[in-house]
Amino acid sequence: MHNTTLKQIAIQLGISITTVSKALKDYSDVSVATKKAVVDLATKLNYTPNSFAVNLRTKESKTIGLIVPTVDYHFFSKVFKGVLEEAEKRNYLVIILRSNEKLELEKKQLALLLNKRVDGILLSLSNETGDFHHINNVLALKTPLVLFDKIAKLVNCSKISINDRKASYDAVTYLIQKGRKKIAHFRGSYMPQNSIDRFLGYKKALEDNNITYDSTLVYVCDSNLDFEDGYNNAKKALEEHPEIDAIFAITDLVAVGILKYCKDAGIEIPTQIALFGFCNSFVTQVTSPKLSTVDQPGFEIGRRAASVLFDEINLKKNNLPVVFQTIELETTILERQSS
Amino acid sequence: MHNTTLKQIAIQLGISITTVSKALKDYSDVSVATKKAVVDLATKLNYTPNSFAVNLRTKESKTIGLIVPTVDYHFFSKVFKGVLEEAEKRNYLVIILRSNEKLELEKKQLALLLNKRVDGILLSLSNETGDFHHINNVLALKTPLVLFDKIAKLVNCSKISINDRKASYDAVTYLIQKGRKKIAHFRGSYMPQNSIDRFLGYKKALEDNNITYDSTLVYVCDSNLDFEDGYNNAKKALEEHPEIDAIFAITDLVAVGILKYCKDAGIEIPTQIALFGFCNSFVTQVTSPKLSTVDQPGFEIGRRAASVLFDEINLKKNNLPVVFQTIELETTILERQSS
Repeated sequence: MHNTTLKQIAIQLGISITTVSKALKDYSDVSVATKKAVVDLATKLNYTPNSFAVNLRTKESKTIGLIVPTVDYHFFSKVFKGVLEEAEKRNYLVIILRSNEKLELEKKQLALLLNKRVDGILLSLSNETGDFHHINNVLALKTPLVLFDKIAKLVNCSKISINDRKASYDAVTYLIQKGRKKIAHFRGSYMPQNSIDRFLGYKKALEDNNITYDSTLVYVCDSNLDFEDGYNNAKKALEEHPEIDAIFAITDLVAVGILKYCKDAGIEIPTQIALFGFCNSFVTQVTSPKLSTVDQPGFEIGRRAASVLFDEINLKKNNLPVVFQTIELETTILERQSS
Repeated sequence: MHNTTLKQIAIQLGISITTVSKALKDYSDVSVATKKAVVDLATKLNYTPNSFAVNLRTKESKTIGLIVPTVDYHFFSKVFKGVLEEAEKRNYLVIILRSNEKLELEKKQLALLLNKRVDGILLSLSNETGDFHHINNVLALKTPLVLFDKIAKLVNCSKISINDRKASYDAVTYLIQKGRKKIAHFRGSYMPQNSIDRFLGYKKALEDNNITYDSTLVYVCDSNLDFEDGYNNAKKALEEHPEIDAIFAITDLVAVGILKYCKDAGIEIPTQIALFGFCNSFVTQVTSPKLSTVDQPGFEIGRRAASVLFDEINLKKNNLPVVFQTIELETTILERQSS
């Protein structure tokens, strides 16, 4: 059908198929008038150039892959928005995949994208990802890859994230300055760097303020970091440690679960327990009381990660050396009613 | 590099390049032992078959396109999840694009996907889409296309949505049964079918219950159907019509904005105003009071739309006739504290 169309255009315009083909590829040895006539007729005939053939010639797919651990969080919607905005500017397409927080699926998705010959990959690691062979393999193949949000410090590539340790240090320091002394931390599982860093920021803030770190005040939310995680751990924590006067949660959904448990149990926020979340999801503005949180700039993380990736794709195309970038975006403490 | 790898495998195993190629394509005239040896070595050498060449041969891209009006709503995250789940089962990739509620961008995104020779397209229409030439062009090219959520009744293709008119009729009937008489409706703009249908369901419920329809009680949220839309229209509506005793909002975010305005203005919910949303976003469970809403099954809409699309792709591949399906998924009224 493809060649039929080229032939049809050639016949209708009384020129050769080669000229039609050159006109569509914008070759300089075809006159502007001919190009216009060809493009007009091609449009009329619903002709679209065969992108596979073009790909084979240029070795570019004008497509990038984006692997996220989950599509459940509002945070990743913001990331999508930032990535799509940068891709649209460059007429690039974005294939979105999820790892479901599983290492095996992450490996499979990377292989699918390589197989598809995407021009580059944006990756936020799964909670299970503790070894990085599969990522180093991609980098060894010289496929541009940028890690974002859930990054690994050990992988040698560009990384866009926030300074989780500092963000969490700031939030806990704020709680201490508000007079809280028994601050619990609801952390994520032991693997992802952001979970580790938020925990370390919490611990450091206690130490710098002469509050002894007590490991029994740290609860691990290791299922989905969701509402239920917050609710169930809050029940456990406040039964085991009724002296707790503040909780710093790894993410807003967990904090919302805590809030709900406190309401059900008649515990007043912020008078009895000050509550602090992380992410600045939309939900934090509509809970009652509104939730204090760390503003994690999802849109900006997506936008910057895509922008760095496109730079690397261009450098590679022009055989120029790539210098990897590590970008830590600023976060802000948002003080609201819950603290 | 591609041929070099094939050659390398052939040399190392002492077999012909043709055999290597056949083994990788799982041809039946190659022994299982040879296949295994080839695949093992190919894996070791990081070999991935050149998918462009494969595409050119099979005319399949194993990729579908998904165009959504926006990535801002939690509803579309649920749709993504449903689509990705079906695609993963079939090893298909999903290119996600957004129209930003603009007709021109929707046209451009469709053209990009056609140019990319995707095997099929899932499309939820923009608010501006009132003429359907661009969609009919895609269908004329025999590219499978399924409309979902924001569909157009006039386009002849498969459609997956909810029965918006019935869902809205049920919600308003419920409010009437609760004794509400001055029920305002905060609708969407005049174009999208779901906005029209929800309005018609509202009107029909009033008429069937002998309540005279009053057009001054209908407010149009024509910016982003968001929190601000709800807040600002609530202010206007309750100043103009202090007699309003219930509001049925086209979507949850608008309802959350109304809720916030009422709190700020000291209007009690549900005693003074009963409030009903639409979608069952996560946020409706954590507002105070919790929001009554229509459960719109986003995950199921995405899953079914993808499933119908993959069926059509397969039928086309096998030169079998496609019968378009119109599927209306069930919705449920969720009665919560706000009504």
